[in-house]
Amino acid sequence: MQKEIRVTVWNEFRHEKENAAVKKHYPDGMHAAIAKTLSAQPGIRARTATLDEPEHGLTEQTLADTDVLTWWGHVAHGEVSDQVVARVQQRVLSGMGLIVLHSGHFSKVFRRLMGTNCSLKWREADEKERLWNLESGHPIAEGLGDFFELPYEEMYGERFDIPTPEELIFISWFEGGEVFRSGCCWTRGHGRIFYFRPGHETYPTYHDANVQRILVNAVRWAAARVWIATDTCPATKPLERIAPKEAVFGRAGVEQQVRDQ
Amino acid sequence: MQKEIRVTVWNEFRHEKENAAVKKHYPDGMHAAIAKTLSAQPGIRARTATLDEPEHGLTEQTLADTDVLTWWGHVAHGEVSDQVVARVQQRVLSGMGLIVLHSGHFSKVFRRLMGTNCSLKWREADEKERLWNLESGHPIAEGLGDFFELPYEEMYGERFDIPTPEELIFISWFEGGEVFRSGCCWTRGHGRIFYFRPGHETYPTYHDANVQRILVNAVRWAAARVWIATDTCPATKPLERIAPKEAVFGRAGVEQQVRDQ
Amino acid sequence: MQKEIRVTVWNEFRHEKENAAVKKHYPDGMHAAIAKTLSAQPGIRARTATLDEPEHGLTEQTLADTDVLTWWGHVAHGEVSDQVVARVQQRVLSGMGLIVLHSGHFSKVFRRLMGTNCSLKWREADEKERLWNLESGHPIAEGLGDFFELPYEEMYGERFDIPTPEELIFISWFEGGEVFRSGCCWTRGHGRIFYFRPGHETYPTYHDANVQRILVNAVRWAAARVWIATDTCPATKPLERIAPKEAVFGRAGVEQQVRDQ
Amino acid sequence: MQKEIRVTVWNEFRHEKENAAVKKHYPDGMHAAIAKTLSAQPGIRARTATLDEPEHGLTEQTLADTDVLTWWGHVAHGEVSDQVVARVQQRVLSGMGLIVLHSGHFSKVFRRLMGTNCSLKWREADEKERLWNLESGHPIAEGLGDFFELPYEEMYGERFDIPTPEELIFISWFEGGEVFRSGCCWTRGHGRIFYFRPGHETYPTYHDANVQRILVNAVRWAAARVWIATDTCPATKPLERIAPKEAVFGRAGVEQQVRDQ
Repeated sequence: MQKEIRVTVWNEFRHEKENAAVKKHYPDGMHAAIAKTLSAQPGIRARTATLDEPEHGLTEQTLADTDVLTWWGHVAHGEVSDQVVARVQQRVLSGMGLIVLHSGHFSKVFRRLMGTNCSLKWREADEKERLWNLESGHPIAEGLGDFFELPYEEMYGERFDIPTPEELIFISWFEGGEVFRSGCCWTRGHGRIFYFRPGHETYPTYHDANVQRILVNAVRWAAARVWIATDTCPATKPLERIAPKEAVFGRAGVEQQVRDQ
Repeated sequence: MQKEIRVTVWNEFRHEKENAAVKKHYPDGMHAAIAKTLSAQPGIRARTATLDEPEHGLTEQTLADTDVLTWWGHVAHGEVSDQVVARVQQRVLSGMGLIVLHSGHFSKVFRRLMGTNCSLKWREADEKERLWNLESGHPIAEGLGDFFELPYEEMYGERFDIPTPEELIFISWFEGGEVFRSGCCWTRGHGRIFYFRPGHETYPTYHDANVQRILVNAVRWAAARVWIATDTCPATKPLERIAPKEAVFGRAGVEQQVRDQ
Repeated sequence: MQKEIRVTVWNEFRHEKENAAVKKHYPDGMHAAIAKTLSAQPGIRARTATLDEPEHGLTEQTLADTDVLTWWGHVAHGEVSDQVVARVQQRVLSGMGLIVLHSGHFSKVFRRLMGTNCSLKWREADEKERLWNLESGHPIAEGLGDFFELPYEEMYGERFDIPTPEELIFISWFEGGEVFRSGCCWTRGHGRIFYFRPGHETYPTYHDANVQRILVNAVRWAAARVWIATDTCPATKPLERIAPKEAVFGRAGVEQQVRDQ
Repeated sequence: MQKEIRVTVWNEFRHEKENAAVKKHYPDGMHAAIAKTLSAQPGIRARTATLDEPEHGLTEQTLADTDVLTWWGHVAHGEVSDQVVARVQQRVLSGMGLIVLHSGHFSKVFRRLMGTNCSLKWREADEKERLWNLESGHPIAEGLGDFFELPYEEMYGERFDIPTPEELIFISWFEGGEVFRSGCCWTRGHGRIFYFRPGHETYPTYHDANVQRILVNAVRWAAARVWIATDTCPATKPLERIAPKEAVFGRAGVEQQVRDQ
């Protein structure tokens, strides 16, 4: 029996409190909408965490109980504490899945894991986005057609400053003339990372059926078996006999250290 | 005419001051030995920088004049200031080459650029290392045979916690029974990064002819054209007309913003 | 409910008929041993196919009913018909998983899918092989330790002439001094491919518990959803209006071809 | 001193003989135009070869004298002999660079090296193509801006059935609503391969300054040192002593085979 996937949906949760246009689409916050989508699926249980909770809602215990973390942030990237960033990074390296959404491209967590600036071009102009599906056989694209459209979205344009994705699932075409690598997969340590572009706060993107399907698919894809990585550098005994070199170094050989077999 | 490659050879420079065995091999420090090897080549000019210099010898000006930086550190990774680490990272993303040597795997600079812990297994046991050449056609392996050996080296064993290398040039066989990905290439931003495993301070590794050839080859490989990356996220005007959507959003369209063509 | 994975275990089945040493380990052929291992697992159903059957046992119908194909061949690669090779290739591109075993590295099927010669060094010398596990969090390595050993195996040494694996799971250390990339993953079309090195016919390798576990894991990993790829190049109507250019080309524009929306 | 790069520009050379529109742009054939562009550069010497010459102009001797081969074909892919395809493939694996142009995506040579069908969507509609530059620091993109445009081109749309490119240099935006990975890099064996999308025969694409610059850059990038690969599988002697196992196998050990050291 496959065990339930435990998702923590993280949201900065600032726009929704201050901007009526955002509130209209997401009265309880984007995290609530995303968590509802995920929890409606069999085998997935989602809870939420937000910036203004203690430790941003991401305590050691919460992360220890999280198979996949989703991340949406925008105006308050700088308010996320370095301690929590390091905690999330270590957890990803140990096998937790991470799904970075839209403006989360500029979050400390994503930039730390990528090692690059993750910068891009952008424009808010109510424009049409068409996402082309490059990997119809990939679990993240399961159930999608050759492409799908979002009638109004913020534009993100290349160059997106990221390491070359291991798998590139979607490329966006924008009405205003740009393109963007909108669905990108990486492995870091034992964890899987997926970046998914759409999700500007002033549009009802997370209510779109295709977007919802991708979120669900990506959670399933990222829920790899959790593994406790060793972040220390252990000294180890040899597995084979090492020839003594006293003549060279004037010290005893090390062959006696060979593990018992 | 090809322009001269400007290399800065960085060294922690602590072991050489305190350990007679190290001093014997490198009386002026490992950096001096490496810089001498590089500067002996046509088209390469190497200078050095060390931890205890102001700003670790890596001022904005020095980095601005550096095409390729080599990095050796071990016991004092924690003493490297975060400010200099960020400076080096940005410079790599802008196109500077970076060659990380041996115990530099655990440096702040390398871990920041990889996004992983870069941990590994290790053992000091005067053991034989044989480096197998996987890419005899690659510029970094130019002039090498199918393999070469170092009679005594520290052992580094897998799992090496790194993102999958874009190109894997060498795999090491160790007398004591381990293997290691000893020559790994990545691109981050516009910069090229090469990690090269050998170089334990108590052995004369940087006097080995094959190792020296690889250092020279790697410098040439990493000396890509410098490019000033944009680490901001610029808002940009559309290149195509965007259909007005007043009916939907109750605001003026943005089509008038289209660039002049 | 997860559907059952249908595996076809393909074997050249020649050594077992002629060589007593091989027959001792695999009285019914290696395919029988591998199929038995797989079928003992819940959710997997394995059948076999061999070279001397009509169409090598790989009819269109058989492949249409196969989620994952495993391939062992050695002395008779040249006897596999090009028609069946093309059929297998197309099926992999359409989403069937493929697991290539040991000397299958030189099969037509594998070389066709890789585009390279897949050559390597080899030696039959009853020597010890130690496989290091680089990706303990990867499904193919599930349940394995840091390494495992095979007391006697044929040696395969680098350079292995393959495209850089997308994921490298195992590297082998050999008693005689070589190393080898022994567990390699690729995607081709919509299909997943795994190459696994051990399995020389004169040793009981496929009776080894670690090897068996890897075979089972790899089958599960490779059993991606089957997808019918388009191998034609369809002409398509535009999704956006294309400006008429009669003035330039003296012919009618194509805007009327835009799909109905 | 850097040696001169010897390029062979291969062209099917059929459209130019039959279609007035094509002839207008390329009176001597596309190969003549491309070769002229390349030969105008210092350090590059280009000759041409076409389908209807003996052995398609690609004799063993010609390939032995070729550092980089460019390939344009369209209506007559099937007329290229399998023998010449195998010859070109082996030469690429040995280190020759290969630049595949436009409809060459469907050539036997490219499909053989990729292992996939290389299919795509297409449309001839005189539409605008804008190529976005993802890697401004890459040698192939040297001297280009953030993007460039071709006013009229054939459309190629995703999904392009190729192995994930090792480096993705350009993505195209099309007026009619599609996107395409238009500049893709791979390594196969010791050779570098670049696919470049534009170049429909009825447009003057190879007279475009940006396209010409990319062709020149790509030739320089692909002109890696030629290497004679081993396409055999050599048996090799051990480098280390292998413990005798007579007790197990009832035969002499192999330790006496160890190479002389």
